[in-house]
Order: sequence, then C-alpha cells, then structure tokens
Amino acid sequence: MKAFLDENFLLQNDTAQILYHEYASKMPIIDYHNHLPPDEITGNICFQNITEAWLRGDHYKWRAMRANGINETFITGDATDPDKFLKWAETVPHTMRNPLYHWTHLELQRYFDINTLLDQHSARTIYRDTSELLQTEACSTRAILRKMNVEVICTTDDPVDDLQFHKAFQMDSESFDLLPGFRPDKFLIVESEGFTDQIHKLEEVTSRDIRNLRDLVECLQMRIDFFHDAGCRLSDHGLTRIFAADFTDDEVDKILKKRLAQRQLYSAEVLQYKSAMLYYLARMYEARDWTMQFHLGALRNNNTRLIRSLGSDAGADSIGDFPQAADLSKFLNRLDSEEKLARTVLYNLNPRDNEVFATMAGNFQDGSIPGKIQWGSAWWFLDQKDGMEDQLNVLSNMGLLSRFIGMLTDSRSFLSFPRHEYFRRILCNLLGTDIENGLLPNDKNFIGSMVQDISYRNVKRYLGL
Amino acid sequence: MKAFLDENFLLQNDTAQILYHEYASKMPIIDYHNHLPPDEITGNICFQNITEAWLRGDHYKWRAMRANGINETFITGDATDPDKFLKWAETVPHTMRNPLYHWTHLELQRYFDINTLLDQHSARTIYRDTSELLQTEACSTRAILRKMNVEVICTTDDPVDDLQFHKAFQMDSESFDLLPGFRPDKFLIVESEGFTDQIHKLEEVTSRDIRNLRDLVECLQMRIDFFHDAGCRLSDHGLTRIFAADFTDDEVDKILKKRLAQRQLYSAEVLQYKSAMLYYLARMYEARDWTMQFHLGALRNNNTRLIRSLGSDAGADSIGDFPQAADLSKFLNRLDSEEKLARTVLYNLNPRDNEVFATMAGNFQDGSIPGKIQWGSAWWFLDQKDGMEDQLNVLSNMGLLSRFIGMLTDSRSFLSFPRHEYFRRILCNLLGTDIENGLLPNDKNFIGSMVQDISYRNVKRYLGL
Amino acid sequence: MKAFLDENFLLQNDTAQILYHEYASKMPIIDYHNHLPPDEITGNICFQNITEAWLRGDHYKWRAMRANGINETFITGDATDPDKFLKWAETVPHTMRNPLYHWTHLELQRYFDINTLLDQHSARTIYRDTSELLQTEACSTRAILRKMNVEVICTTDDPVDDLQFHKAFQMDSESFDLLPGFRPDKFLIVESEGFTDQIHKLEEVTSRDIRNLRDLVECLQMRIDFFHDAGCRLSDHGLTRIFAADFTDDEVDKILKKRLAQRQLYSAEVLQYKSAMLYYLARMYEARDWTMQFHLGALRNNNTRLIRSLGSDAGADSIGDFPQAADLSKFLNRLDSEEKLARTVLYNLNPRDNEVFATMAGNFQDGSIPGKIQWGSAWWFLDQKDGMEDQLNVLSNMGLLSRFIGMLTDSRSFLSFPRHEYFRRILCNLLGTDIENGLLPNDKNFIGSMVQDISYRNVKRYLGL
Repeated sequence: MKAFLDENFLLQNDTAQILYHEYASKMPIIDYHNHLPPDEITGNICFQNITEAWLRGDHYKWRAMRANGINETFITGDATDPDKFLKWAETVPHTMRNPLYHWTHLELQRYFDINTLLDQHSARTIYRDTSELLQTEACSTRAILRKMNVEVICTTDDPVDDLQFHKAFQMDSESFDLLPGFRPDKFLIVESEGFTDQIHKLEEVTSRDIRNLRDLVECLQMRIDFFHDAGCRLSDHGLTRIFAADFTDDEVDKILKKRLAQRQLYSAEVLQYKSAMLYYLARMYEARDWTMQFHLGALRNNNTRLIRSLGSDAGADSIGDFPQAADLSKFLNRLDSEEKLARTVLYNLNPRDNEVFATMAGNFQDGSIPGKIQWGSAWWFLDQKDGMEDQLNVLSNMGLLSRFIGMLTDSRSFLSFPRHEYFRRILCNLLGTDIENGLLPNDKNFIGSMVQDISYRNVKRYLGL
Repeated sequence: MKAFLDENFLLQNDTAQILYHEYASKMPIIDYHNHLPPDEITGNICFQNITEAWLRGDHYKWRAMRANGINETFITGDATDPDKFLKWAETVPHTMRNPLYHWTHLELQRYFDINTLLDQHSARTIYRDTSELLQTEACSTRAILRKMNVEVICTTDDPVDDLQFHKAFQMDSESFDLLPGFRPDKFLIVESEGFTDQIHKLEEVTSRDIRNLRDLVECLQMRIDFFHDAGCRLSDHGLTRIFAADFTDDEVDKILKKRLAQRQLYSAEVLQYKSAMLYYLARMYEARDWTMQFHLGALRNNNTRLIRSLGSDAGADSIGDFPQAADLSKFLNRLDSEEKLARTVLYNLNPRDNEVFATMAGNFQDGSIPGKIQWGSAWWFLDQKDGMEDQLNVLSNMGLLSRFIGMLTDSRSFLSFPRHEYFRRILCNLLGTDIENGLLPNDKNFIGSMVQDISYRNVKRYLGL
Repeated sequence: MKAFLDENFLLQNDTAQILYHEYASKMPIIDYHNHLPPDEITGNICFQNITEAWLRGDHYKWRAMRANGINETFITGDATDPDKFLKWAETVPHTMRNPLYHWTHLELQRYFDINTLLDQHSARTIYRDTSELLQTEACSTRAILRKMNVEVICTTDDPVDDLQFHKAFQMDSESFDLLPGFRPDKFLIVESEGFTDQIHKLEEVTSRDIRNLRDLVECLQMRIDFFHDAGCRLSDHGLTRIFAADFTDDEVDKILKKRLAQRQLYSAEVLQYKSAMLYYLARMYEARDWTMQFHLGALRNNNTRLIRSLGSDAGADSIGDFPQAADLSKFLNRLDSEEKLARTVLYNLNPRDNEVFATMAGNFQDGSIPGKIQWGSAWWFLDQKDGMEDQLNVLSNMGLLSRFIGMLTDSRSFLSFPRHEYFRRILCNLLGTDIENGLLPNDKNFIGSMVQDISYRNVKRYLGL
C-alpha cells in the first residue's frame, strides 16, 4: 500500500517516479495565465492568517462548504476567521476524492511543512501554526513565488487598467517576471448595463472620445500598445462560445452608435457586435505577435440570490452545453485565410467538447511553429486528476502531446502553485505507465526531455519569453 | 486469477474487500425509487416460474434477445414460458460484458443459491429449480424483500391512484415500509391524445370540476396532500429536459382552456404549459417538504412498430441528446431565488451531460442541509459498472461524494435488489483502490463510515425516513 | 517492464495473450470498408519508395507534421521524396502517444521486418531498405494484401464509376475478393456547385435524361443494379448527420427541377431534398438486401487556405458537434415501420455520441438476424486504443459485443492493415483482463470463439460473403 501523499504521490511505478524526480521536478514555473492581484505581488504583502489566504476569495471552497451544509455566515458572512476556518476544516474530510482534498494537503505540505491531515480536530493547531508562518517574511507573496521556483507570472487585466503595479514591480530587481494579460471581456458584452460606463473608462485612459466603431477600435489598439510596452504578450477571453456571425463594419458601427445612445439592441445585433469585436481584436493580437486565449463553455451566474449578495465569482458558475464547433471553425478559418491568425490557445470547460477542441486545433496548424494552435490545459472544474488525464490522453490521440505548452494555475490564490507539481506528476505517471506497459519505448532521455518541454521549455519558446 | 462472481466480486484489492464486507454489506436497503407493483407486494404473491419473474416485463432482456436474433414470439409473443426461458438462456452467454450477464448470475446466486452459469445447456435444470423455489413462501414478494434486507420501498404512482395497496400494506405489520411516489407525467404532456381523459380521472378522484388552471392546480394539491398522508415524500418526473419558458398564469389558463376544449395547441403553448406546471408542482413539493426527482434525457418510443404491438416500455427507448443546461438553471434559479426550492435529485441519461448535472447541483447548494441538491445515481442504460464509476468519479471531482444519497433500483422486478450490492461493491472498490494507491489516507474507520453513509444513512437522513 | 511493441504488444496479461495468439491472430481479414484505389490493386503496382506509400495521400501524417512545425514544402509541396521522408522521420518521435507512433512501427515490423525506431537518425537507412523492398514483387499491392491474410476488400466508389478495375480483377484468379462499395454522397449535396455536373455524369453512364425526380431515382436504381452485379453488397454515406425532414414526392420533384434549372435552393429545400434522397436510397438498398453504412459527425473542410491549394481530404477536417438522435430515430423508424429497414451500420465521429448511437441501434433490432443494426467500429480520429476501448465498452454495456461485426481500415493506404491486428489485440486485452479480474468466467473456448466471431465470422455471416 502506498502512503498518502508521500514523495511518490500520483506516481504509480518506478519509471513514473524517475521521470518526475529526475526530469520534471526541477523545471521552473511559467504561470502564463492566472488571476493573482498584482498589487499584492508588488506590495509583497503578508497574510494575517490562513483564512485570509485560503478562504477569502476561493469559490471552489465556498461551493464545497455549501454542499456540506455549512451556513453562509461561516463561508462569506460575518463569522470570525478562526470560526470560518473551523467550518472549512470540518468540511475537508468530506471532500475526499475532490481535488480540494489533495490541494489542501499539498499546500499544507509545500508551504507550511505540515503533514497532519486537516479536520475539526487538527484545525486549531493548524490555524495557529500556519497563521504564525504566514505573518513572517518567509511567507510574503514574493517569497512564496520564489519558493515555488516561479520564473514568470502573467496576470489577467482589464484594458483600462493603468498597470501601475506591473510597472512598479519591473523597477525592482526580483527573481521572477510579472507581466500583464489583456482581458477585454467587458468590451464584448455590449448588452450589459455597464457597457457604456466601460466605454467611458476607456475614453478617460486614452483621452479620446469614442463616438463610433473606428474610435473604439483605435482606443483598444492604444491599450494593446500600452500593454505590450508593459510586457504583455497574451490576451484572454472568457466566453460561452466563439461568435462568428457575418457582419460589415457599417453594420457594427450602427450597432455601436445605437448602444452608445443607450438604446437596447436586438439579439442579432448583439451577436454581430461580438463577432466583429472578436475579429478586430484577433487581428490586433496577431499584428503584435501575441498569443490569444479563449476560455469557452462556462454557464455563469446561475444563482441570482448569491449574485445579489456576493456579486459574480461567488460559486454559482457551472458547465454549459453550448454548440462550439461551427463558429469556432468559422472564426479561426477567416483569420487563417487572411494570414492573420495569431498563436491561439483554446480551452473548453465541458469535457464532452474535448475531441472537438483537440481536432479543431489540428485544422489550423500551419507548420510555422510547433503547436501554433494549442488545445489548452484542463481548466476550472476539469483541473483535477481525471480531467487532466482526459485532456492529456485526447491531446495525445488527436494531436501532439510533445508540443503542448502545459499547465497554468488560472488561480486567484498564492497557494495554488503546487498545481503545477500535481500536473507534472500526472503527466509523468501517464508516460511512465505507458513505458512500463510496452506502449512507449523505454527511452527515458527522450521522454524525460519531453516532460521538461511540456513542463517548461515549450511555453517559454512559444511565448518568446 | 480471480474466480468469476465469487465473494470478492468487483473488489480488486484487500482494502476494497474490507470496506465492502465490514462496512457496506451490512447496511439495510432504502430503495427510494422503483417501479414495483404495489399490489404484488401487498398481495405477497408468488411467481409461477422464472419466466414470469424475469421476462414478463423486462425490456432490458427483450432488447438483448432481439439484438441476438431471437424472434419476437419467444420474447413477448405466444411461446410457452419454458420455451421463452430457453431462448433467454441461449442469449445469456451472448450478453457477456453487458450488465445483464452480471445481474443474471448475481440474481441466480442471491435468490436461488444457484452458482451454475446460465446457457442453453443449464436452462432446463435452472428453469425447474428456480420455478420450484419461486412457488414456495420463501420466495413470495415480501419474503424476497425481507431477505434482501429492505427497509423502505418507494414506488412510482399516478396522482389519480387510490393507493389502496399502500394503505392496506400499512395496516399489516411488516419488517419494511411501502411508500408511494408521486409521478404526474400525464398531467404535463398536454399535447397527448389522452390528456383530457387524464383530467377527467382527476376530476373523479377529487370530485371536482376542472375548468381552468386554478381548478387543476388545486386538484393536484389535493392529490399531493392525499399522497402525503399515505407516506409519500418524493415526487418524480420523466422528461426529455426541464422546460423553463416564460409564462403568466393568465396565459397558461388560456392554454389549458383551449386544450380542454379539445383544440390543438401550438408548440410554444405546449412549452409554456409544461414550464408552468413544472413550476407550480415544484412549489407544492417544497411546501410539503418533499424531495423532487427529475429523470431527464430519454428519447422514448422510437419504434412505432413495437409501440403498436406492445405499447410503451417495450424496449424502444434510447438516449437523447437534448440541450439541458440553460433551462435547468433557469428553473432551479427561479425557485431558489423565491426560497421555494425543494430538495432535488437530478438524473441524466446521457453520460455526456454528467459534468453539466454535477456542476449544476453545486450552484444551488445553500448550506441548509448537506447535499440538498443531489446529482442522482447512474440510471437505466448507465446502471452498470462503467456508468456508475463515471458518475461516482465525476461526482467526486465536482461535488461531495460523501454526501451522496446513493443507489436505487428504478426497477419493475423483485429480483433486481442485488443492484444495491453491485453499487456498493463498485463504491468500495473505487475507495479501496484510491487508498491502496496513496490517493486517500488509509483511514478505514472514516471511509468505512462514509461508505455506510452513501449506502444507507445519507438517504435516510435526507428523506427524513 | 514490457518491451515496446513485442509479440505481446497491448496484451497486458496471460489470458489476453492466449486469446490473441491462439484465437484471434489466425483469422483472415474482411476489410469491408476502405478507400483503396481499385486500379492499384488490379494493376498490382509497386511503390517506388516509402514516401510514395506512406506520405503521398495520408492526411493523418500531414496534420502531425504541420503541428510539429514542418513547412508545407516537405508535406505536400515540392521537396524530394527522401527529404519529405526525413521530415516525417523527425516528426515521428514527437508523435509518441498518438496512434501514428504505433502504426508507424507496426507497419515497419509487419511489412518490412524492421524493428528499429524511426527518427532522424534511422531515417536514411529505413528509407533505403523499405524502398528497396517496395520495388520487389513481394511488396506489390496484391502481395501485400495476401501477406496480410486478406480475404475480402470492399472499396468505396462513386455511383457513376464504371467499375472496370473491379471487373478486370474478378477475371483473374486471386486469393482474395475485390468488391465495390456504393457511395452516392455527390447526389445528396444538392447545394454544391458541382451537383448538376454529377447529374450529367449519371445521365451519361445510364444513357438516360434526368429531368425530374423519377428519372433520378430510376437512374440511381440502375447504378445500384450495376454495382450489385459487380458484387457490391454495401453502401456508404458520409454526412454531418441524418436528415429526416418531412417531404412529399411532389415537393422533392419541384426542388430537383429548380436545382436542375440552375437556381439556388432555400435551406429548407436542401434539407427536404436530402431527407428524401436518403430515404429513397435506403429503400433501394433494402430491396437488394444490401447493408447500408452511415458515417456521421465530421465537420469537414475547415481550412479554406488548404482546400484552395490541396482540395478536400487535405487534413482540414475535424469532429463536429451536431445533434444526432432525433432525425436518426425518425429516419430508421420510418423504414422499420414500413418493413424496409436494411441491415445498417452507424458510425459516429464524436465520441460524446457513443451512447446515443449504441442505444439507437437497440431500438431497431428486430430479431431477424443477430445484430441487424450495428454500431460501427471507432472511426477516423477515434481509430486508436482509447477510442476503440471506449466503443467496445459502450457497445458491451448497451448492446451485444458478441454480435459485433468488428474492424475495418477505412484507409487509403495498403500499409494500414495491421490496424486489424491492433483492434484484435485491444479486444483480447479487454476480455482477458475481465477474465483475470473475475468479471467474466474463465471459459477460453467460448470467449476465444467470440473473439474469432468479432474478428471475422460475424461480418462474413452478416454480409453474406
């Protein structure tokens, strides 16, 4: 019997263990997409306690606590930090087989050297010990990232952001890089109440009036240039699906003017506007030699009660079942046929779309660089052992695993970095098992190097970092 | 090599075996959803032979026989019971790797202590031996349920049913409970020819005229009260998908009146009616503190030829590919935001919807009770080893396995109860394998207790039985 | 540790090895659906070199090379054959875990007795050795097929084809049969530019004018008769999905006339035409006692740039996400209720539809012959270990594995025949593993015979060959 979460965690045979310990584990981390707050990195802050670090913003844990019958007071409500932690600790044993159970104990081990299992009995001691450690300099945000062997952090930022924290950070000498990521979602949801406010913010930061489509596109171009100068090389979009309705610039211009005049749009107009804006942005990304990412398939904000009290990202999001293939193909094909298709990473949230995404990427590989179109790593609800294994297996079968740019945390938390280790162990286990079963040749040099590529070198080359 | 179907069937390692034999196997059975005929339970009848018990109503076996090239005469036709059994016996070896192969031999072992494999050679002996046993008191319907350690049976009943057999049963002293289940499907399919007849039946049992929406809702409320008094705590709906079109009471009132006047409805009207009726019923269930179940995703009655000769449930149903997420979310959210969302169990028939359902449940957990919104056990075509493992794994990854209310037979047959054992063995094998592989801590007390929760205690608490 | 690709490749235990070596491996091959060029079989040609045999038409390899960053010059462009092969050889190690990696080395072993791994270092030697062998008579197309123990080859042919090569072949005495397959796709895509040209070709080969629906149907019937006389027993359709809109003959007649007058059709007309033509053809197949195949779910020709330069089948096809169930049911049901449903093989390309297809087949089994409605083998992107295992497992759970007609290459290449071996090894491994785990009885005679049925005897009986 293997011990729980020992040094060979997730590594079920000798070859897997060799691949992980001798090849994967030493690679630095390029976390090319996450939601870390740049102010907290630049400010190099310390957390007061483990509740602050773990529970303040983590809707994964909130969902688990609600499902466990914990009252909202102890989740996002007025309870004290120690009491909230106790309720989380009580919940932890009930999360067995959920990724939270592994993540929790990996994080306790890697950040705090705590090997005790968290439950209601160990809660008080663990609260005290972790909180003490968190308040020391050894657990400041930057110290944590250094300890995790992070080389690059790419955050996710609004186009109107002034990037002051990124810029300030870049003045320091630090062992890792902090780069912004361009996420213009708010400029796509033209039907939302806040859309015109968002336009006003863009007018402010660009000191330009936005009266028509041309103004808007030019202002967005200015922000792309501004982000580029701050080191940004990646954009990201969070969408239910890709929109690829036919449109003319004139049509879109009229739609935008109508919306700026505070009039409501027809759904066909909304669709045309979104389709156009995605296309314009994609061309601007390509011109700057950026990589564009698309996170597709979430059905968000299902619970009006939670949104009213907590806003979005409250744990009321789930997996949607939108058709994905046709418009994704149309969008990528238009750009490709105009020779304006940037490096692209496609992420799906519904695993039933795995094969559609894996094979769609293959349609637009053009031989210019290895793995130009990437099918992104298993994400959000799929960011767990089964989800990652499925993604790696489908990618292997329908594309080239060897050219995969690998893992990212996509997380809001400084304590999520063991997810890279988790991914690498799973990858090594799959490859090691294949070797042991005679499905791959026993060439540890080549396959070990491939593991290092997927863990680190591929993404470094791919993003030109 | 493990022997076929021995005491450690499905239990691939020592830990799994301990979990099953020391924890799971002793738990009673709460079969909270099935299609057993209450008259046959209350009447404590005996079957004349194994063909009657096994083949008379089992469309799973019918499908297998048809696929095996057996003429309908020997399936639902005029052939004698021994001849029908012989044709089934010939088919059995051809069902290897289908759940029917395991079910058949589990049932022969558990009910009849027969360890021989069924095929054309053993058919005659097995027919004779089982039929002899079936005619004894030891194999009466109640004796069978007692032998299976059944504690509660919840049947599936039409709102117009007088529940005479449930009531009569409750006068007896018996070691298990027999409770009705409320299944108002016929009041939803407003477009069906038989709809107005069904309304008339409701008028009769309530001694009320139904002329408008208010009448109908009040009559259904009367039946819910009547079922509640007879011990009912669960409703159930069998639908392609949840309907959640917008409607006003006035609109629905007009639609109902139009239909009662024997006029045909537009499809938009049908949709509005169904959406409304689901919503009204859901609120009534909540008011009574019931649990509501939704079985979603079947594409029924595909074969007109079979329906003509045999009616529905003839083995001509299959898995559909309906969109599920948006309307399911809208329906649950409306109820939740009005604080009228009852305990809910969602069952999907297409496994490609597993992740949609698992994460949808998570959106509406409100901390009031553990696992308030359940993603139901693998059902019908998914009620087999792979289907159950998939459901358990996705539930683990996207929810809390520990709070799962577990297995039910959903069966028309008194001989289906080993499916609980089958489920428990699969559950123990997953958990035992995780422990052996170092993915879970080796805490057999906690995990053994969790196994007992999922096998029995969770559903008992959840339904308040 | 198992050696890579040794004699027990894919066979993970003793029982699996016995099943494969003692039962499966000796069975001949009936390759009942492929895209081999009949002229090259009848002509008994030799390939000049391995690039010609492997890379000239194989869009699987093209996609892998593009994804690996290889310039199109070396894929479909002007580079020399040795240079193209070198680029492929460089790519091969990067295909680890893709089926191409196994296929490549299986083919080197089986056709050329080469056990070296292909990469940039071994490329030159392997190019020389294979090319030498290919130019010998031992590697002529017919010699290859004989060596692979092929008994029947069914090609895929246009209804207007004169089948001269099939007829010429049949005059020779050869150890295997070469039969045509009827694939009338071009007569369904009424919206395509080339449709009327295709009609003109049909007019030519039938010496009939086609002015209306009746003419068209009669001409197609003539071609079916012609194909039948040439030994054809199978039709095939490649479609996104089955079309089953309502139509009358009059409506379709008008639609056809409109199209023949070179006018553009509305999409509803296109749908009606396709629905009708599928139905008419299906009835003609049934009248001839043919088997009809439907390959459903591909999203083809996604990349305009590649189509412009290379035409279709250029590696720009992927997996679609079309709804499949409702129209498939309606189409099969209409034929079944008219007692005109031919033997049918349904292939899905998106694995998320596996369960829909597996259970749909079950609705129309009518007991006339075992496995009348087949859910076809894992196809194209699914033609790999995981895809085949999934298909075999879902088929087992939802139908009768024992009645499965098994594998086909669906390939354009003479070197693809080890895929039958690959399939058989996977099948034996699943069954052997089940036996070893106590999930199946240890009856190697019965299960060995079942393996032989699935490998060879079932399809022979099914097609009446």
